[in-house]
Amino acid sequence: MLELFIGDKNYSTWSMRPWLVIQHFNIPFMERLIPFDHFDMDSQFKQSILKINPTGKVPALTDDGFLIWDSLAICEYLAEKFPEKQLWPQDIKQRARARSMSAEMHSSFTALRSRCGMNIDADLKEVGLKLWQDHSLQQDVNRILHLWSERPQLDGFLCGERFGIVDAFYAPVVMRFKTYGIPVPDNGQRYIQKLLTVPAVQQWIAEAKAEFRFVACEEQYRT
Amino acid sequence: MLELFIGDKNYSTWSMRPWLVIQHFNIPFMERLIPFDHFDMDSQFKQSILKINPTGKVPALTDDGFLIWDSLAICEYLAEKFPEKQLWPQDIKQRARARSMSAEMHSSFTALRSRCGMNIDADLKEVGLKLWQDHSLQQDVNRILHLWSERPQLDGFLCGERFGIVDAFYAPVVMRFKTYGIPVPDNGQRYIQKLLTVPAVQQWIAEAKAEFRFVACEEQYRT
Ligand SMILES: N[C@@H](CCC(=O)N[C@@H](CS)C(=O)NCC(=O)O)C(=O)O
Ligand SMILES: N[C@@H](CCC(=O)N[C@@H](CS)C(=O)NCC(=O)O)C(=O)O
Repeated sequence: MLELFIGDKNYSTWSMRPWLVIQHFNIPFMERLIPFDHFDMDSQFKQSILKINPTGKVPALTDDGFLIWDSLAICEYLAEKFPEKQLWPQDIKQRARARSMSAEMHSSFTALRSRCGMNIDADLKEVGLKLWQDHSLQQDVNRILHLWSERPQLDGFLCGERFGIVDAFYAPVVMRFKTYGIPVPDNGQRYIQKLLTVPAVQQWIAEAKAEFRFVACEEQYRT
Repeated sequence: MLELFIGDKNYSTWSMRPWLVIQHFNIPFMERLIPFDHFDMDSQFKQSILKINPTGKVPALTDDGFLIWDSLAICEYLAEKFPEKQLWPQDIKQRARARSMSAEMHSSFTALRSRCGMNIDADLKEVGLKLWQDHSLQQDVNRILHLWSERPQLDGFLCGERFGIVDAFYAPVVMRFKTYGIPVPDNGQRYIQKLLTVPAVQQWIAEAKAEFRFVACEEQYRT
Protein backbone atom coordinates (compact mmCIF):
# COMPACT_ATOMS: atom_id res chain seq x y z
CA MET A 1 0.00 0.00 0.00
CA LEU A 2 1.16 3.52 -0.86
CA GLU A 3 0.90 6.16 1.86
CA LEU A 4 1.70 9.76 1.01
CA PHE A 5 2.57 12.00 3.95
CA ILE A 6 1.95 15.67 3.26
CA GLY A 7 1.68 19.00 5.06
CA ASP A 8 -1.07 21.63 4.98
CA LYS A 9 -2.49 22.00 1.51
CA ASN A 10 -2.60 25.77 1.85
CA TYR A 11 1.14 26.06 2.43
CA SER A 12 3.09 22.96 1.45
CA THR A 13 4.47 23.38 -2.05
CA TRP A 14 6.64 20.28 -1.88
CA SER A 15 3.67 18.16 -0.81
CA MET A 16 1.48 19.51 -3.58
CA ARG A 17 3.72 18.14 -6.33
CA PRO A 18 3.61 14.37 -5.73
CA TRP A 19 0.02 14.61 -4.47
CA LEU A 20 -1.12 16.10 -7.79
CA VAL A 21 0.70 13.34 -9.65
CA ILE A 22 -0.64 10.45 -7.61
CA GLN A 23 -4.16 11.88 -7.61
CA HIS A 24 -4.29 12.90 -11.26
CA PHE A 25 -3.11 9.51 -12.45
CA ASN A 26 -5.59 7.64 -10.28
CA ILE A 27 -2.94 5.75 -8.36
CA PRO A 28 -4.49 4.21 -5.23
CA PHE A 29 -2.97 5.75 -2.09
CA MET A 30 -3.74 6.77 1.46
CA GLU A 31 -3.32 10.46 2.20
CA ARG A 32 -1.68 11.17 5.57
CA LEU A 33 -1.84 14.86 6.31
CA ILE A 34 0.39 16.01 9.16
CA PRO A 35 -0.66 19.57 10.01
CA PHE A 36 2.06 22.15 10.45
CA ASP A 37 2.26 23.85 13.84
CA HIS A 38 5.86 24.99 13.79
CA PHE A 39 9.17 23.43 12.76
CA ASP A 40 11.10 23.29 16.03
CA MET A 41 12.12 19.87 17.23
CA ASP A 42 9.41 19.85 19.88
CA SER A 43 6.60 20.64 17.43
CA GLN A 44 3.83 18.12 16.89
CA PHE A 45 4.67 18.18 13.19
CA LYS A 46 8.28 17.13 13.80
CA GLN A 47 7.33 14.55 16.41
CA SER A 48 4.98 12.92 13.90
CA ILE A 49 7.01 13.11 10.71
CA LEU A 50 10.27 12.01 12.31
CA LYS A 51 8.66 8.65 13.04
CA ILE A 52 8.31 8.21 9.27
CA ASN A 53 11.08 10.24 7.68
CA PRO A 54 14.46 11.05 9.31
CA THR A 55 14.73 14.31 7.32
CA GLY A 56 11.78 15.60 9.36
CA LYS A 57 10.13 16.89 6.21
CA VAL A 58 7.14 16.27 4.00
CA PRO A 59 6.40 14.86 1.50
CA ALA A 60 7.30 11.25 2.15
CA LEU A 61 5.95 8.19 0.42
CA THR A 62 5.92 4.72 1.91
CA ASP A 63 5.29 1.60 -0.17
CA ASP A 64 4.42 -1.19 2.25
CA GLY A 65 6.61 0.61 4.76
CA PHE A 66 9.53 1.26 2.39
CA LEU A 67 10.40 4.99 2.46
CA ILE A 68 10.99 7.35 -0.47
CA TRP A 69 11.63 10.79 0.97
CA ASP A 70 11.93 13.53 -1.60
CA SER A 71 9.28 14.96 -3.92
CA LEU A 72 11.26 14.40 -7.12
CA ALA A 73 12.38 10.90 -6.12
CA ILE A 74 8.76 10.08 -5.20
CA CYS A 75 7.61 11.12 -8.67
CA GLU A 76 10.37 9.07 -10.35
CA TYR A 77 9.36 6.09 -8.21
CA LEU A 78 5.72 6.40 -9.24
CA ALA A 79 6.74 6.80 -12.89
CA GLU A 80 8.66 3.53 -12.69
CA LYS A 81 6.03 1.65 -10.74
CA PHE A 82 3.23 2.63 -13.11
CA PRO A 83 4.91 2.85 -16.54
CA GLU A 84 1.57 2.46 -18.34
CA LYS A 85 0.40 5.78 -16.88
CA GLN A 86 3.17 7.74 -18.62
CA LEU A 87 3.96 10.26 -15.88
CA TRP A 88 6.83 11.59 -17.99
CA PRO A 89 6.41 12.38 -21.72
CA GLN A 90 6.93 9.46 -24.09
CA ASP A 91 9.19 11.44 -26.41
CA ILE A 92 12.80 11.30 -25.20
CA LYS A 93 13.47 14.98 -25.90
CA GLN A 94 10.31 16.20 -24.20
CA ARG A 95 11.17 13.88 -21.32
CA ALA A 96 14.64 15.42 -21.05
CA ARG A 97 13.05 18.90 -21.08
CA ALA A 98 10.55 17.85 -18.43
CA ARG A 99 13.34 16.52 -16.22
CA SER A 100 15.52 19.61 -16.75
CA MET A 101 12.63 21.88 -15.81
CA SER A 102 11.67 19.80 -12.78
CA ALA A 103 15.24 19.62 -11.52
CA GLU A 104 15.64 23.36 -12.07
CA MET A 105 12.53 23.93 -9.95
CA HIS A 106 14.00 21.60 -7.35
CA SER A 107 17.17 23.65 -6.86
CA SER A 108 16.48 27.19 -8.05
CA PHE A 109 14.08 30.16 -7.87
CA THR A 110 15.12 31.00 -4.34
CA ALA A 111 13.89 34.61 -4.56
CA LEU A 112 10.38 33.55 -5.56
CA ARG A 113 10.36 30.75 -3.02
CA SER A 114 11.56 32.80 -0.09
CA ARG A 115 9.63 36.03 -0.77
CA CYS A 116 6.37 34.59 -2.05
CA GLY A 117 5.57 31.66 0.20
CA MET A 118 2.62 29.64 -1.09
CA ASN A 119 -0.59 30.68 0.61
CA ILE A 120 -3.49 29.58 -1.56
CA ASP A 121 -6.17 31.00 0.68
CA ALA A 122 -4.63 34.48 0.95
CA ASP A 123 -4.96 37.53 -1.27
CA LEU A 124 -1.60 39.28 -1.05
CA LYS A 125 -1.71 41.42 -4.17
CA GLU A 126 -0.78 44.59 -2.28
CA VAL A 127 2.24 42.85 -0.80
CA GLY A 128 3.04 41.50 -4.26
CA LEU A 129 3.07 45.01 -5.71
CA LYS A 130 5.83 46.03 -3.31
CA LEU A 131 7.76 42.77 -3.69
CA TRP A 132 7.71 43.25 -7.44
CA GLN A 133 10.34 46.00 -7.11
CA ASP A 134 12.83 43.25 -6.33
CA HIS A 135 15.08 42.51 -9.29
CA SER A 136 15.88 38.92 -8.33
CA LEU A 137 12.17 38.13 -7.99
CA GLN A 138 11.57 39.52 -11.47
CA GLN A 139 14.42 37.40 -12.81
CA ASP A 140 12.90 34.23 -11.36
CA VAL A 141 9.49 35.08 -12.78
CA ASN A 142 10.91 35.89 -16.21
CA ARG A 143 12.80 32.65 -16.33
CA ILE A 144 9.65 30.69 -15.45
CA LEU A 145 7.56 32.53 -18.05
CA HIS A 146 10.24 31.83 -20.63
CA LEU A 147 10.21 28.11 -19.79
CA TRP A 148 6.41 28.01 -19.98
CA SER A 149 6.44 29.82 -23.32
CA GLU A 150 8.48 27.01 -24.88
CA ARG A 151 5.72 24.43 -24.41
CA PRO A 152 5.04 22.51 -27.61
CA GLN A 153 1.38 23.57 -27.96
CA LEU A 154 0.07 26.97 -26.90
CA ASP A 155 -3.01 25.29 -25.47
CA GLY A 156 -1.19 22.28 -24.06
CA PHE A 157 0.76 21.41 -20.96
CA LEU A 158 4.44 22.16 -20.40
CA CYS A 159 5.89 19.21 -22.29
CA GLY A 160 3.00 17.97 -24.39
CA GLU A 161 -0.72 17.46 -24.58
CA ARG A 162 -0.97 15.60 -21.29
CA PHE A 163 -0.54 16.77 -17.72
CA GLY A 164 2.60 15.27 -16.18
CA ILE A 165 5.16 15.49 -13.40
CA VAL A 166 6.63 18.71 -14.78
CA ASP A 167 3.25 20.46 -14.57
CA ALA A 168 2.88 19.30 -10.98
CA PHE A 169 6.30 20.81 -10.24
CA TYR A 170 5.23 24.21 -11.55
CA ALA A 171 1.72 24.14 -10.04
CA PRO A 172 2.80 25.83 -6.78
CA VAL A 173 4.23 28.67 -8.87
CA VAL A 174 0.80 29.20 -10.39
CA MET A 175 -0.63 29.46 -6.87
CA ARG A 176 2.01 32.03 -5.94
CA PHE A 177 1.40 34.09 -9.06
CA LYS A 178 -2.30 34.25 -8.18
CA THR A 179 -1.85 35.07 -4.50
CA TYR A 180 0.72 37.83 -5.08
CA GLY A 181 -0.83 39.15 -8.30
CA ILE A 182 2.38 38.65 -10.27
CA PRO A 183 1.98 40.22 -13.72
CA VAL A 184 1.72 37.43 -16.31
CA PRO A 185 1.46 38.07 -20.06
CA ASP A 186 -1.14 36.41 -22.24
CA ASN A 187 1.00 33.42 -23.16
CA GLY A 188 1.54 32.57 -19.50
CA GLN A 189 -2.12 33.19 -18.67
CA ARG A 190 -3.09 30.58 -21.22
CA TYR A 191 -0.94 28.03 -19.42
CA ILE A 192 -2.35 29.00 -16.04
CA GLN A 193 -5.91 28.59 -17.33
CA LYS A 194 -4.98 25.19 -18.74
CA LEU A 195 -3.49 24.01 -15.47
CA LEU A 196 -6.57 25.15 -13.57
CA THR A 197 -8.75 22.82 -15.67
CA VAL A 198 -7.04 19.78 -14.13
CA PRO A 199 -9.42 18.18 -11.59
CA ALA A 200 -6.60 17.23 -9.20
CA VAL A 201 -5.43 20.87 -9.15
CA GLN A 202 -8.97 22.07 -8.50
CA GLN A 203 -9.35 19.56 -5.68
CA TRP A 204 -6.07 20.57 -3.99
CA ILE A 205 -7.11 24.25 -4.14
CA ALA A 206 -10.58 23.54 -2.77
CA GLU A 207 -9.16 21.47 0.09
CA ALA A 208 -6.53 24.12 0.83
CA LYS A 209 -9.23 26.76 1.13
CA ALA A 210 -11.32 24.50 3.35
CA GLU A 211 -8.53 23.98 5.87
CA PHE A 212 -9.08 27.24 7.73
CA ARG A 213 -5.82 26.79 9.58
CA PHE A 214 -3.59 29.80 10.19
CA VAL A 215 -0.01 28.64 10.77
CA ALA A 216 1.92 31.61 12.09
CA CYS A 217 5.38 30.46 10.94
CA GLU A 218 4.10 30.10 7.38
CA GLU A 219 2.55 33.57 7.35
CA GLN A 220 5.11 36.15 6.31
CA TYR A 221 2.55 38.83 5.62
CA ARG A 222 -0.86 38.14 7.21
CA THR A 223 -1.41 38.62 10.92
CA MET B 1 27.86 13.80 -30.24
CA LEU B 2 27.68 14.57 -26.52
CA GLU B 3 29.29 17.79 -25.31
CA LEU B 4 29.49 18.46 -21.58
CA PHE B 5 29.98 22.10 -20.57
CA ILE B 6 31.54 22.49 -17.16
CA GLY B 7 33.20 25.10 -14.96
CA ASP B 8 36.55 25.05 -13.16
CA LYS B 9 37.27 21.63 -11.72
CA ASN B 10 38.61 23.15 -8.53
CA TYR B 11 35.34 24.91 -7.72
CA SER B 12 32.38 23.62 -9.68
CA THR B 13 30.49 21.06 -7.63
CA TRP B 14 27.56 20.85 -10.01
CA SER B 15 29.88 20.20 -12.94
CA MET B 16 31.75 17.50 -11.09
CA ARG B 17 28.67 15.27 -10.74
CA PRO B 18 27.74 14.55 -14.37
CA TRP B 19 31.40 14.65 -15.40
CA LEU B 20 32.23 11.81 -12.98
CA VAL B 21 29.30 9.82 -14.32
CA ILE B 22 30.09 10.26 -18.00
CA GLN B 23 33.79 9.65 -17.44
CA HIS B 24 33.46 6.68 -15.10
CA PHE B 25 31.07 4.87 -17.40
CA ASN B 26 33.24 5.43 -20.47
CA ILE B 27 30.61 7.33 -22.38
CA PRO B 28 32.21 9.16 -25.32
CA PHE B 29 31.93 12.93 -24.89
CA MET B 30 33.70 16.19 -25.56
CA GLU B 31 34.60 18.20 -22.48
CA ARG B 32 34.01 21.93 -22.85
CA LEU B 33 35.45 23.77 -19.88
CA ILE B 34 34.32 27.38 -19.54
CA PRO B 35 36.57 28.98 -16.92
CA PHE B 36 34.92 31.06 -14.22
CA ASP B 37 35.97 34.70 -14.03
CA HIS B 38 32.97 36.14 -12.24
CA PHE B 39 29.22 35.74 -12.53
CA ASP B 40 28.06 39.21 -13.58
CA MET B 41 26.30 39.47 -16.89
CA ASP B 42 29.36 40.99 -18.54
CA SER B 43 31.70 38.19 -17.42
CA GLN B 44 33.38 36.04 -20.03
CA PHE B 45 31.85 33.02 -18.33
CA LYS B 46 28.31 34.34 -18.76
CA GLN B 47 28.93 35.51 -22.30
CA SER B 48 30.09 32.02 -23.25
CA ILE B 49 27.61 29.85 -21.37
CA LEU B 50 24.58 31.93 -22.32
CA LYS B 51 25.17 30.98 -25.94
CA ILE B 52 24.58 27.36 -24.91
CA ASN B 53 22.32 27.47 -21.86
CA PRO B 54 19.77 30.23 -21.11
CA THR B 55 20.11 29.63 -17.35
CA GLY B 56 23.66 30.94 -17.64
CA LYS B 57 24.94 28.04 -15.56
CA VAL B 58 27.06 24.95 -15.84
CA PRO B 59 26.79 22.02 -16.25
CA ALA B 60 24.98 21.69 -19.54
CA LEU B 61 24.93 18.72 -21.86
CA THR B 62 24.19 18.90 -25.56
CA ASP B 63 23.38 15.83 -27.64
CA ASP B 64 23.84 16.80 -31.29
CA GLY B 65 22.89 20.31 -30.22
CA PHE B 66 19.88 19.31 -28.09
CA LEU B 67 20.24 20.87 -24.62
CA ILE B 68 19.80 19.21 -21.21
CA TRP B 69 20.58 21.82 -18.59
CA ASP B 70 20.62 20.53 -15.04
CA SER B 71 23.04 18.11 -13.39
CA LEU B 72 20.36 15.69 -12.20
CA ALA B 73 18.45 15.78 -15.49
CA ILE B 74 21.74 15.21 -17.34
CA CYS B 75 22.41 12.09 -15.26
CA GLU B 76 18.88 10.79 -15.85
CA TYR B 77 19.33 11.39 -19.57
CA LEU B 78 22.58 9.45 -19.63
CA ALA B 79 21.01 6.63 -17.60
CA GLU B 80 18.24 6.34 -20.20
CA LYS B 81 20.51 6.65 -23.21
CA PHE B 82 22.92 3.98 -21.96
CA PRO B 83 20.72 1.51 -20.04
CA GLU B 84 23.32 -1.25 -20.36
CA LYS B 85 25.72 0.78 -18.22
CA GLN B 86 23.42 0.74 -15.20
CA LEU B 87 24.02 4.25 -13.90
CA TRP B 88 21.34 3.70 -11.26
CA PRO B 89 21.19 0.51 -9.15
CA GLN B 90 19.30 -2.39 -10.71
CA ASP B 91 17.35 -3.13 -7.55
CA ILE B 92 14.20 -0.97 -7.40
CA LYS B 93 14.58 -0.18 -3.69
CA GLN B 94 18.24 0.75 -3.94
CA ARG B 95 17.33 2.83 -6.98
CA ALA B 96 14.64 4.65 -5.00
CA ARG B 97 17.18 5.28 -2.21
CA ALA B 98 19.74 6.52 -4.74
CA ARG B 99 17.19 8.91 -6.21
CA SER B 100 16.01 10.12 -2.80
CA MET B 101 19.60 10.82 -1.75
CA SER B 102 20.48 12.53 -5.03
CA ALA B 103 17.37 14.71 -4.95
CA GLU B 104 18.04 15.58 -1.30
CA MET B 105 21.53 16.69 -2.28
CA HIS B 106 20.00 18.71 -5.11
CA SER B 107 17.79 20.78 -2.83
CA SER B 108 19.28 20.67 0.67
CA PHE B 109 22.45 21.07 2.76
CA THR B 110 22.48 24.82 2.31
CA ALA B 111 24.69 25.44 5.35
CA LEU B 112 27.42 23.10 4.08
CA ARG B 113 27.11 24.45 0.56
CA SER B 114 27.23 28.11 1.48
CA ARG B 115 29.88 27.97 4.23
CA CYS B 116 32.21 25.35 2.78
CA GLY B 117 32.51 26.13 -0.91
CA MET B 118 34.34 23.40 -2.81
CA ASN B 119 38.01 24.26 -3.23
CA ILE B 120 39.90 21.07 -3.94
CA ASP B 121 43.30 22.72 -4.12
CA ALA B 122 42.99 24.57 -0.81
CA ASP B 123 43.79 23.51 2.75
CA LEU B 124 41.25 25.31 4.92
CA LYS B 125 41.37 23.20 8.07
CA GLU B 126 41.88 26.21 10.32
CA VAL B 127 38.85 27.90 8.79
CA GLY B 128 36.97 24.62 9.15
CA LEU B 129 37.72 24.48 12.86
CA LYS B 130 35.96 27.81 13.38
CA LEU B 131 33.10 26.99 11.02
CA TRP B 132 32.51 23.79 12.95
CA GLN B 133 30.98 25.79 15.81
CA ASP B 134 27.98 26.37 13.57
CA HIS B 135 25.06 24.18 14.56
CA SER B 136 23.40 24.11 11.12
CA LEU B 137 26.67 23.01 9.52
CA GLN B 138 26.93 20.18 12.03
CA GLN B 139 23.36 19.17 11.26
CA ASP B 140 24.08 18.94 7.54
CA VAL B 141 27.22 16.88 8.16
CA ASN B 142 25.43 14.55 10.56
CA ARG B 143 22.65 13.95 8.09
CA ILE B 144 25.15 13.12 5.34
CA LEU B 145 27.12 10.77 7.60
CA HIS B 146 23.88 9.06 8.56
CA LEU B 147 22.94 8.57 4.89
CA TRP B 148 26.38 7.18 4.10
CA SER B 149 26.23 4.81 7.06
CA GLU B 150 23.14 3.12 5.60
CA ARG B 151 25.00 1.86 2.53
CA PRO B 152 24.37 -1.84 1.96
CA GLN B 153 28.02 -2.95 2.31
CA LEU B 154 30.50 -1.29 4.64
CA ASP B 155 33.14 -1.51 1.92
CA GLY B 156 30.82 -0.68 -0.94
CA PHE B 157 29.38 2.41 -2.58
CA LEU B 158 26.33 4.29 -1.37
CA CYS B 159 23.68 2.08 -2.94
CA GLY B 160 25.53 -1.10 -3.80
CA GLU B 161 28.79 -2.59 -4.95
CA ARG B 162 29.13 -0.35 -7.98
CA PHE B 163 29.84 3.37 -8.27
CA GLY B 164 26.78 5.20 -9.59
CA ILE B 165 25.05 8.56 -9.97
CA VAL B 166 24.38 8.83 -6.24
CA ASP B 167 28.11 8.55 -5.47
CA ALA B 168 28.83 11.26 -8.02
CA PHE B 169 26.29 13.48 -6.26
CA TYR B 170 28.07 13.09 -2.92
CA ALA B 171 31.61 13.33 -4.31
CA PRO B 172 31.82 17.13 -3.90
CA VAL B 173 30.93 16.65 -0.23
CA VAL B 174 33.97 14.40 0.15
CA MET B 175 36.11 17.18 -1.34
CA ARG B 176 34.64 19.67 1.13
CA PHE B 177 35.20 17.38 4.11
CA LYS B 178 38.87 17.08 3.14
CA THR B 179 39.46 20.78 2.47
CA TYR B 180 37.81 21.95 5.70
CA GLY B 181 38.98 19.04 7.87
CA ILE B 182 35.44 18.12 8.85
CA PRO B 183 35.56 15.42 11.57
CA VAL B 184 34.39 12.12 10.07
CA PRO B 185 34.08 8.91 12.09
CA ASP B 186 35.53 5.61 10.94
CA ASN B 187 32.42 4.46 9.07
CA GLY B 188 32.41 7.63 6.97
CA GLN B 189 36.18 7.45 6.43
CA ARG B 190 35.75 4.00 4.92
CA TYR B 191 33.33 5.41 2.36
CA ILE B 192 35.64 8.33 1.57
CA GLN B 193 38.55 5.94 0.99
CA LYS B 194 36.35 3.85 -1.27
CA LEU B 195 35.28 6.84 -3.35
CA LEU B 196 38.89 7.96 -3.73
CA THR B 197 39.75 4.64 -5.41
CA VAL B 198 37.55 5.53 -8.39
CA PRO B 199 39.79 6.56 -11.32
CA ALA B 200 37.39 9.24 -12.55
CA VAL B 201 37.42 10.84 -9.08
CA GLN B 202 41.22 10.73 -9.01
CA GLN B 203 41.37 12.29 -12.45
CA TRP B 204 39.01 15.14 -11.54
CA ILE B 205 41.07 15.91 -8.42
CA ALA B 206 44.36 15.84 -10.32
CA GLU B 207 42.99 18.13 -13.01
CA ALA B 208 41.51 20.48 -10.40
CA LYS B 209 44.91 20.79 -8.72
CA ALA B 210 46.61 21.37 -12.06
CA GLU B 211 44.37 24.31 -12.96
CA PHE B 212 46.29 26.87 -10.90
CA ARG B 213 43.50 29.38 -11.37
CA PHE B 214 42.51 31.61 -8.47
CA VAL B 215 38.94 32.84 -9.00
CA ALA B 216 38.33 35.59 -6.47
CA CYS B 217 34.54 35.25 -6.32
CA GLU B 218 34.88 31.55 -5.48
CA GLU B 219 37.38 32.20 -2.70
CA GLN B 220 35.58 32.91 0.54
CA TYR B 221 38.66 32.41 2.68
CA ARG B 222 41.92 32.54 0.74
CA THR B 223 43.37 35.84 -0.47
N1 LIG C 1 13.62 18.58 -1.09
C1 LIG C 1 12.51 18.21 -0.26
C2 LIG C 1 12.01 19.43 0.49
C3 LIG C 1 10.90 19.14 1.46
C4 LIG C 1 10.55 20.33 2.36
O1 LIG C 1 11.36 21.26 2.55
N2 LIG C 1 9.32 20.29 2.93
C5 LIG C 1 8.86 21.31 3.85
C6 LIG C 1 7.36 21.55 3.73
S1 LIG C 1 6.86 22.20 2.17
C7 LIG C 1 9.05 20.83 5.27
O2 LIG C 1 8.70 19.71 5.60
N3 LIG C 1 9.65 21.67 6.13
C8 LIG C 1 9.87 21.33 7.49
C9 LIG C 1 11.20 21.86 7.95
O3 LIG C 1 11.91 22.47 7.14
O4 LIG C 1 11.50 21.67 9.14
C10 LIG C 1 11.47 17.58 -1.16
O5 LIG C 1 11.44 17.91 -2.35
O6 LIG C 1 10.70 16.72 -0.71
N1 LIG D 1 20.72 23.17 -10.39
C1 LIG D 1 21.82 23.45 -11.28
C2 LIG D 1 22.81 24.36 -10.60
C3 LIG D 1 23.95 24.79 -11.49
C4 LIG D 1 24.84 25.87 -10.85
O1 LIG D 1 24.40 26.60 -9.93
N2 LIG D 1 26.09 26.00 -11.36
C5 LIG D 1 27.03 27.01 -10.93
C6 LIG D 1 28.45 26.51 -10.98
S1 LIG D 1 28.80 25.20 -9.85
C7 LIG D 1 26.98 28.19 -11.89
O2 LIG D 1 27.04 27.99 -13.08
N3 LIG D 1 26.86 29.41 -11.36
C8 LIG D 1 26.82 30.57 -12.14
C9 LIG D 1 25.88 31.58 -11.60
O3 LIG D 1 25.22 31.28 -10.58
O4 LIG D 1 25.76 32.65 -12.17
C10 LIG D 1 22.40 22.11 -11.70
O5 LIG D 1 22.28 21.15 -10.94
O6 LIG D 1 22.93 21.99 -12.80
